[in-house]
Amino acid sequence: MYMGHRAGRERGPEVAGPRGGRGSPAVALDIGGTKTAAALVSDRGEILGSATMATRGGHADLLAGMERLVIEAVGPVGLAEVSGLGISSAGPIDLASGTVAPVNIPELRGLPLLKRMAALVPGRPARLLGDGLAAAAGEHWVGAGQGFEDLLAIVVSTGVGGGLVLRGRLHGGASGNAGHVGHAPVVMDGDPCPCGGIGCPEAYASGPSMVAFAVRSGWRTDARPDGEALAEAARRGEPAAVLAFERGAGALAAMIAAAAATCDLRRVIIGGGVAAAGPVLMDPLRRSLGRYLSLTFLAGLEVVPAGLGARASLIGAAAAVHEPDRYAISEVTASLVSS
Amino acid sequence: MYMGHRAGRERGPEVAGPRGGRGSPAVALDIGGTKTAAALVSDRGEILGSATMATRGGHADLLAGMERLVIEAVGPVGLAEVSGLGISSAGPIDLASGTVAPVNIPELRGLPLLKRMAALVPGRPARLLGDGLAAAAGEHWVGAGQGFEDLLAIVVSTGVGGGLVLRGRLHGGASGNAGHVGHAPVVMDGDPCPCGGIGCPEAYASGPSMVAFAVRSGWRTDARPDGEALAEAARRGEPAAVLAFERGAGALAAMIAAAAATCDLRRVIIGGGVAAAGPVLMDPLRRSLGRYLSLTFLAGLEVVPAGLGARASLIGAAAAVHEPDRYAISEVTASLVSS
Repeated sequence: MYMGHRAGRERGPEVAGPRGGRGSPAVALDIGGTKTAAALVSDRGEILGSATMATRGGHADLLAGMERLVIEAVGPVGLAEVSGLGISSAGPIDLASGTVAPVNIPELRGLPLLKRMAALVPGRPARLLGDGLAAAAGEHWVGAGQGFEDLLAIVVSTGVGGGLVLRGRLHGGASGNAGHVGHAPVVMDGDPCPCGGIGCPEAYASGPSMVAFAVRSGWRTDARPDGEALAEAARRGEPAAVLAFERGAGALAAMIAAAAATCDLRRVIIGGGVAAAGPVLMDPLRRSLGRYLSLTFLAGLEVVPAGLGARASLIGAAAAVHEPDRYAISEVTASLVSS
Repeated sequence: MYMGHRAGRERGPEVAGPRGGRGSPAVALDIGGTKTAAALVSDRGEILGSATMATRGGHADLLAGMERLVIEAVGPVGLAEVSGLGISSAGPIDLASGTVAPVNIPELRGLPLLKRMAALVPGRPARLLGDGLAAAAGEHWVGAGQGFEDLLAIVVSTGVGGGLVLRGRLHGGASGNAGHVGHAPVVMDGDPCPCGGIGCPEAYASGPSMVAFAVRSGWRTDARPDGEALAEAARRGEPAAVLAFERGAGALAAMIAAAAATCDLRRVIIGGGVAAAGPVLMDPLRRSLGRYLSLTFLAGLEVVPAGLGARASLIGAAAAVHEPDRYAISEVTASLVSS
């Protein structure tokens, strides 16, 4: 049962070029733990039309729901006209099988995601990216990372994810899962993380981690104790809430410094729902960064907010279709397309 | 005043190919805080002849000493026959100016290192690498990293350094200083580091850091309190020494897990004097790694000892000449060569 709603076409698609060829729009699918979005995206990164649905909630066939969502987003342009399909998904991803194994979407594990979606665009590329990498691709393509050859995009939300652009190209790593900075430990012998490890930034800086820490530290609220309520409390100066953001910001700062020292970066882009809290997170983050960043070659490192907001991964998935030399992370997808 | 000693020719050079062309040996220079080495290196990574000198100790002209060392290492083959010159130096390095600014060799700061050395091999390439990157290049070329597309080489010694190979290519990053994993924080609000930052692996796992921690924890020795004496004490089971190695190993494990999650690596190679301590370091390191590494895509990560020992950086500097497509990190050197 399809349970989504139509987000509406934002403006009429201006389709140039041959049918399904270069210059045609791509269709993108962004699978998150709560919401899945699809969009028709031009070769300049503009969203020409989109649709969303709840990821969970009784789909008899989750993939069929996604297929319908893609068709809805493409709208009157028609699937025959799109240049290809890009998929962003919560990870980890398995490029060899075209599957994903997100912690928060157990229904999706093991399903032939890429193969099923690729069948919507026969003869054209279908490409899969983890959502952190997709966000990095989107921000580099048309967002806050344009022109930067070496950057990290971080998404701070229910979890903490990320993606790297190195030498001007999205960096997939050995298995396409590079950029898992949310699980790059910053606290030796630190707190346990949902991933099974310890000391991960996600265990300190994700929305749920900060809320849990604040509650343990005495924070009480009449509202639902979520990230937004915590940010409100921090803005009012409630000590436990302020402390939770300072602790989360400290973990993010150490992680950013570590990634920058390891990869010699020039720009770090922070997005996601928690990052949207603004100064209560960003002010202590900048203060902490000053303590961790001492290497001379990192003196010019810039930490900036996301330019594309919640759409970065959706636009980045389309980037993998429009600009494969820079944003496609594996040729494995090509063979799956032809099967 | 040249103060070095001749290490001796290891075997007669078998020079193939045209004069100074492909197939000819390269000459490599490896500048460390204590010792500087030069070697003639074949295009298969064999050391055909070498020479060493003390880096410090009253050189009126440090660069002149290095020039003489290079000439001595080349020996009867003659500079006209070498295909180029590779330099490995303690960093950070500045590729734009061809200079280096090592903390431990203040005499070298600001000197036109690359330009002076390039003049020894006119018309042929001279290339500069940080010593961590050079170690990674050497290990990937002919050492413990052969065949691995995504690896980190770590050097644990007086400091903690490293270098990355990503997609089969040495990764220099924005300024040629990628791989500074010794200053990738692993302890939020941690110990101060000589670099000016806090919580760096170098502040926990370098030889001097471990010795200082052991002494603070009550370790006493009749010998000079250095890394070797500490390793001996740990082997005898002296608690403060064991604890120092466990703490250093824990910091290295967290750093390795962080780099692997960030870059999606398949192999980590550990070398340097402290790593040579063997099981007193490596056993707790492997135990700690098990606690930090939980991401499924890192299940196959291998941590292995260096294959080239103390020669990795020297051989890696030659690799930048012999195999520039894989190991030269910047084209800046080319323009300096022609000047």
